[in-house]
Amino acid sequence: MSSKHLGKQTVRLSSPPAVLAGAAVVGKKEGEGPLGACFDYISDDSYFGEKTWEKAESNMLKRCFGIACDKAGMPPSSLQYIFGGDLLNQCTASSFAMRDSQVPYFGVYGACSTMAESLSLAAMAVDGGFCDGAAALSCSHFCSAERQFRFPLEYGGQRAPTAQWTVTGAGTVILAKSGQGPYITHVTTGKIIDAGVTDANNMGAAMAPAAYDTIKTHFEDTGLSPEDYDLIITGDLGYVGREALLELFSRDGVKLGTNAMDCGLLIFDRETQDVHAGGSGCGCSASVLCGMLIDSMRERRWKRMLFAATGALMSTTSAQQGESIPGICHAVALNLEVPC
Amino acid sequence: MSSKHLGKQTVRLSSPPAVLAGAAVVGKKEGEGPLGACFDYISDDSYFGEKTWEKAESNMLKRCFGIACDKAGMPPSSLQYIFGGDLLNQCTASSFAMRDSQVPYFGVYGACSTMAESLSLAAMAVDGGFCDGAAALSCSHFCSAERQFRFPLEYGGQRAPTAQWTVTGAGTVILAKSGQGPYITHVTTGKIIDAGVTDANNMGAAMAPAAYDTIKTHFEDTGLSPEDYDLIITGDLGYVGREALLELFSRDGVKLGTNAMDCGLLIFDRETQDVHAGGSGCGCSASVLCGMLIDSMRERRWKRMLFAATGALMSTTSAQQGESIPGICHAVALNLEVPC
Repeated sequence: MSSKHLGKQTVRLSSPPAVLAGAAVVGKKEGEGPLGACFDYISDDSYFGEKTWEKAESNMLKRCFGIACDKAGMPPSSLQYIFGGDLLNQCTASSFAMRDSQVPYFGVYGACSTMAESLSLAAMAVDGGFCDGAAALSCSHFCSAERQFRFPLEYGGQRAPTAQWTVTGAGTVILAKSGQGPYITHVTTGKIIDAGVTDANNMGAAMAPAAYDTIKTHFEDTGLSPEDYDLIITGDLGYVGREALLELFSRDGVKLGTNAMDCGLLIFDRETQDVHAGGSGCGCSASVLCGMLIDSMRERRWKRMLFAATGALMSTTSAQQGESIPGICHAVALNLEVPC
Repeated sequence: MSSKHLGKQTVRLSSPPAVLAGAAVVGKKEGEGPLGACFDYISDDSYFGEKTWEKAESNMLKRCFGIACDKAGMPPSSLQYIFGGDLLNQCTASSFAMRDSQVPYFGVYGACSTMAESLSLAAMAVDGGFCDGAAALSCSHFCSAERQFRFPLEYGGQRAPTAQWTVTGAGTVILAKSGQGPYITHVTTGKIIDAGVTDANNMGAAMAPAAYDTIKTHFEDTGLSPEDYDLIITGDLGYVGREALLELFSRDGVKLGTNAMDCGLLIFDRETQDVHAGGSGCGCSASVLCGMLIDSMRERRWKRMLFAATGALMSTTSAQQGESIPGICHAVALNLEVPC
């Protein structure tokens, strides 16, 4: 087994890469939510000045990438890689957003876990000595996702209570070999977990078993326990998925306590914003990580965080063909200080 | 600049990972082509025993992965990562194929360049000390691609002379820290290049500028020249794209000679198989690499090879919205011997 590998699915980074900057750009509804003050840019225009929602999504991510580069003091030309992906068919939101960047580009797809996947790979690229600077990014847009996965918006379809609301948001992290923290210390890469859930209006239930598997494996691989983290933040399990996750751990006698939160529950106010089970989409964990979590770590609210974004690896075609919904969860551990 | 980085877009791997095995599974038409004898399994049934073409595509890739693991003498449990992707919306062909593998999974998307992207990342994961064994894989299926990107098959639409034929094929490479070669020595990661081509029936033209950019940059970064390779093999430029690539190099006074070939021209016989400009799809370069190229290197037909798969980063939605077609090309250098 290679020296960086711990247990089954985790690597401990030998030279933890520094998170130089994070930036988040979101839509109006997200700006009106509890985290509104944390985002770098809020657009009142759901089209972001473009003619279609797909172009809007690309524009949002492009803007987000630009802000992140500015905040990090690293122009795109100083980055050796971009890792990016999104929910649109053929991942066009991110590739069109990055087509003028002139930076070598790795497209990734992990559904709503994409931000954790791109961050994992960017951290490994820096730690492996393949680059000095890399960007990890992802996004989603409520309107482009809704018409691709569900119904035309004009149809005004009823939403199930277990359904989640796709976040209009983008997040970008700029990583470098050295610099201001937090630092990425561990990467736990998820296996695909299919618990047999077939209800496409209940993604939380489909993803919770994957979150359980990855987080549990992270603890086993590293010898750490939930108390070692100030925050264990899942991607977008929402209310239903989070309850399922807590239940799965409680069966093992493990109590995930008040340090366990979910991006899908933080970004909206479920009482007033009519989002049913909470937020979802690649842009949910991406914008919460880059808009709030990184800054809160710097403000020393949390010193150690496990960022565990979850994804549902299905398509409308797989759902129509009666397939169950495989889930995946990738976890990235961040520490405000470089551990000894 | 990190020590492994050469020039703008290339890394030289410090401990070149070994290609333990490659395996290719294809459909009937591919089996009847010039490379028929090279493939590990040819299915006469376009459904691969399944009820839909999407499930067929997953079945094909799953079978291919199993054969590759067997040939490498490495069960899935000995792999630390799988890097995989495909053309279907939300990359479901590969994620459904791998959902029972129990191996940590990174989904990637590079359109028809996906095999080179997954191979690049797998090689970097091994070289970076993150794992001892990893799989890189990709696939496409003519029928699932045709109905997703073009027309229902029953419609019998006319095909433009510049159009290519999506290969029904899957390829898997098993990489390890040490073992029998060939070895992966360099990875040149492509930038997104958009030359403004809008004709979705002429992908070769859209991808050729990306192939030119990446291959040219590879030579600049490494100080190598075309003569240093016994084979420079592009992904699926087809007849039109290959001509454009040769023209672009000839303007620089560089003659890509008889050592420059294209997977899309090797896999079918254009005289007798009615494929117009040649083969395409993620499965094209994947099955040619894993079915023929790796074995031919072992037979010492070629000692040094540059594998440069190309992709068109568009979707039906981006085409309908009048967007041009961004291309990308990732290049991986293989050497039969570990260089000193």
